[in-house]
Amino acid sequence: MEEDTGALPRKESFSEWYNEILWRAEIMDVRYPVKGLYVWYPHGFGIRKRAYGILRDLMDRDHAETMFPLLIPKTEFMKEAEHIKGFEDEVYWVTHGGRNELDVPLALRPTSETAIYPMYALWIRSHTDLPLKLYQVVNTFRYETKHTRPLIRLREITSFKEAHTVHASWEEAAAQVEVALGLYKEFYDTLRVPVILSRRPDWDKFPGADYTIAVDTIMPDGKTLQIGTVHMLGDHFSRTYAITYEDANGEQQYGYQTCYGISERSIAAVVSVHGDDKGLVLPPAVAPIEIVVVPIIVGKRRDEVLASATALESELRDAGFAVKLDARDMRPGAKYYHWEMRGVPLRVEVGPRDVDANTVVAVTRTGKKTTLDRRGVVEGITSVLSTFGEDLSQAARQAMAARITAVATLEETAEAVKSGVAVVHWCGSQECAEKIEAAVDASIIGSDIRSDLIAVSDGPCVVCGGEGRSALVARTY
Amino acid sequence: MEEDTGALPRKESFSEWYNEILWRAEIMDVRYPVKGLYVWYPHGFGIRKRAYGILRDLMDRDHAETMFPLLIPKTEFMKEAEHIKGFEDEVYWVTHGGRNELDVPLALRPTSETAIYPMYALWIRSHTDLPLKLYQVVNTFRYETKHTRPLIRLREITSFKEAHTVHASWEEAAAQVEVALGLYKEFYDTLRVPVILSRRPDWDKFPGADYTIAVDTIMPDGKTLQIGTVHMLGDHFSRTYAITYEDANGEQQYGYQTCYGISERSIAAVVSVHGDDKGLVLPPAVAPIEIVVVPIIVGKRRDEVLASATALESELRDAGFAVKLDARDMRPGAKYYHWEMRGVPLRVEVGPRDVDANTVVAVTRTGKKTTLDRRGVVEGITSVLSTFGEDLSQAARQAMAARITAVATLEETAEAVKSGVAVVHWCGSQECAEKIEAAVDASIIGSDIRSDLIAVSDGPCVVCGGEGRSALVARTY
Repeated sequence: MEEDTGALPRKESFSEWYNEILWRAEIMDVRYPVKGLYVWYPHGFGIRKRAYGILRDLMDRDHAETMFPLLIPKTEFMKEAEHIKGFEDEVYWVTHGGRNELDVPLALRPTSETAIYPMYALWIRSHTDLPLKLYQVVNTFRYETKHTRPLIRLREITSFKEAHTVHASWEEAAAQVEVALGLYKEFYDTLRVPVILSRRPDWDKFPGADYTIAVDTIMPDGKTLQIGTVHMLGDHFSRTYAITYEDANGEQQYGYQTCYGISERSIAAVVSVHGDDKGLVLPPAVAPIEIVVVPIIVGKRRDEVLASATALESELRDAGFAVKLDARDMRPGAKYYHWEMRGVPLRVEVGPRDVDANTVVAVTRTGKKTTLDRRGVVEGITSVLSTFGEDLSQAARQAMAARITAVATLEETAEAVKSGVAVVHWCGSQECAEKIEAAVDASIIGSDIRSDLIAVSDGPCVVCGGEGRSALVARTY
Repeated sequence: MEEDTGALPRKESFSEWYNEILWRAEIMDVRYPVKGLYVWYPHGFGIRKRAYGILRDLMDRDHAETMFPLLIPKTEFMKEAEHIKGFEDEVYWVTHGGRNELDVPLALRPTSETAIYPMYALWIRSHTDLPLKLYQVVNTFRYETKHTRPLIRLREITSFKEAHTVHASWEEAAAQVEVALGLYKEFYDTLRVPVILSRRPDWDKFPGADYTIAVDTIMPDGKTLQIGTVHMLGDHFSRTYAITYEDANGEQQYGYQTCYGISERSIAAVVSVHGDDKGLVLPPAVAPIEIVVVPIIVGKRRDEVLASATALESELRDAGFAVKLDARDMRPGAKYYHWEMRGVPLRVEVGPRDVDANTVVAVTRTGKKTTLDRRGVVEGITSVLSTFGEDLSQAARQAMAARITAVATLEETAEAVKSGVAVVHWCGSQECAEKIEAAVDASIIGSDIRSDLIAVSDGPCVVCGGEGRSALVARTY
């Protein structure tokens, strides 16, 4: 794991930058000998661990964690016709155990509806069993034939958080969709990643759903990245899998369901939205190391400075920070490079002059320098990190806002989607959508937009001139 | 998820008891439609979550967590001859993606040596990269043809914690084996599960290892359950996968490796060792709910009692306990039954007399009743729970000691293994082992025994009369 000290590609060459930063910052190793499968380096896994800790805490407020099997018998998998159509080209099949051919081939779950819902049918008997809200964090599989990309388009999604709920009525399920969107919004707020919520066009919703609301962010190259989806399933699956309950009047009723998921694309968003030309930039909430303490050791005051830095590290650790003392025998500049590449939010330098003045120098990953009093250093650093996090949110919001353009014509749309997202009036018909998409080489990603960065309005459809509403058009990952 | 209020089978009928408690205490649902695959109920998953939190904390002292892919190309998997021989009859093969046959079949990892070591060969360059100590918690797969059993013999092991280390010398790797055994011992101490360490016979070691030291516990039916293994791999795999490093003199050297694992058998041990005729008994460290507060509501003092119980719950939660208030409208007895079945370590009752006397009544899962002063209740409960945990350890140690018999003849061995473990002198030869095993219908599970419950000695082999040492003979899971 040697350090490559060459320059990172500029972030404006986003694709090159992304590929390089993944191994330079030790997030993923792409050299695993199967296409679309990658290895988490410990540093990358540390980010995932903190991010999923946040996600689990949010889910645990109101859901219980559980775990279902990876392997789904073909007989169960093939029960729900629309669902199969959506996935059958992407499913990996286990056909042999040892030297024997299996009687029934087993699918590697592409998502777990068909594993979970037969059990829900057994578990739910009465209205008192509802609502049922469970989630799991598991690996799922897609036989991707498109170009694969670490964290973004994978054959093994190692970190799929999927929730599955059952309710007594359509209205309660619809209300759960809003609860889920609120949790996801809060999750991405903590990650300092701005998002846009919108309703997917009908032809792009989850196979078997009434409707799908997606959570997207905009990547530095202007393409959108879907980083969460919430599906209203209605009674579609409950009719297939016989998920029924006895209501208060003793009548059998079908349950109404939702499901919603987030994957390691959330980590791709953190990497891409915040990183810069020097490497990763991590929000404090997901940084495996929040603070690196670097002693500036010169000549004969070495022991004194090292003792001071060590005491500082202990004090910060006791205060609950993820802190690391870097006392390696190398130039401070090389250490700065190392930790900047890995996105550590704050570097604290301790030199002879700091020891004399009873101060420390705190430098954020984005270069803001503050001299802090050594007494009360915990409060000082708490405040610097908090401001740093808020600054990341602000910068990310501004960058996203700059990539969104309200447009009135197909020509303007075509121009806007070269570097970002176009907001255009669209009547909602598939016919007009196809014309827009053909004209601008991008997709209608959603309507019913919810984002405080986008003003929505009614207006004439950019194609047919009929009654239209704001919709998002973008190139997508 | 209705409550079945019938009696649990007696624990002395262990097999029936085990099968029933898994669903009665909501640990696993066995009704998933594939043999050997089971579903974690939220309560069972909560136990797993706490147990694996303890395990991760232990590992994180000195290892980094990471994650490697599930799918291993056949070409990599088949490189290490001994290893393949050990696993080829048990491997599930993915042969199709969508409608296409794959060029190279992909194995579902039965264990991850062949996924991890090709990456280690890329990562390790210099002696400064060593030691390397990583671990992951993943699902692994075995096409078991034997009778499967939840948590014990599975086709999907959902909770495999496997560590893989590389060292500069054989001696350093051997020292790591001892470190790993220390961590595992500490883990099981926290779970209040007594263990015996022993060296597996050569024909029973991990395929490709120099030697294997196993961690076993004894189940209520006298069979041993292997709940951890630590393998000294020597340079066996490093030669196959070209894991080399440059030493301080600039010479290329092979690395020396160890690997060690723990699975959800750890949860099976907690369930089996501590449970009783009323249900599960959980050590506080792994209980998803440590304390249930039950208001004893009678007549007109209902509001007052409920307010007192609610205040108590808050205070205990603020003190860091996993606490639940059970204010359901049902008889206290039915509540007691419910929480006893699920193994909650402590029930705290609050009734009108307690409100008057400013006391609460704490009842441990094993029936020890203490009246505690309401002031200082946190300290009182901390002490009761701590004693409860120690009592579980003591009871489990006594039960294990009662199942171990030192024997001097094959007849005595045959008698002892009917209800437990025999300790017999054995010369170490496979020939004598086979004679012992045939005579007593049980297996030599290990020599070089380490357990403070077993005195080891030298003596004449029970078969050939040659020089022998203490060895364990038992029926095994």
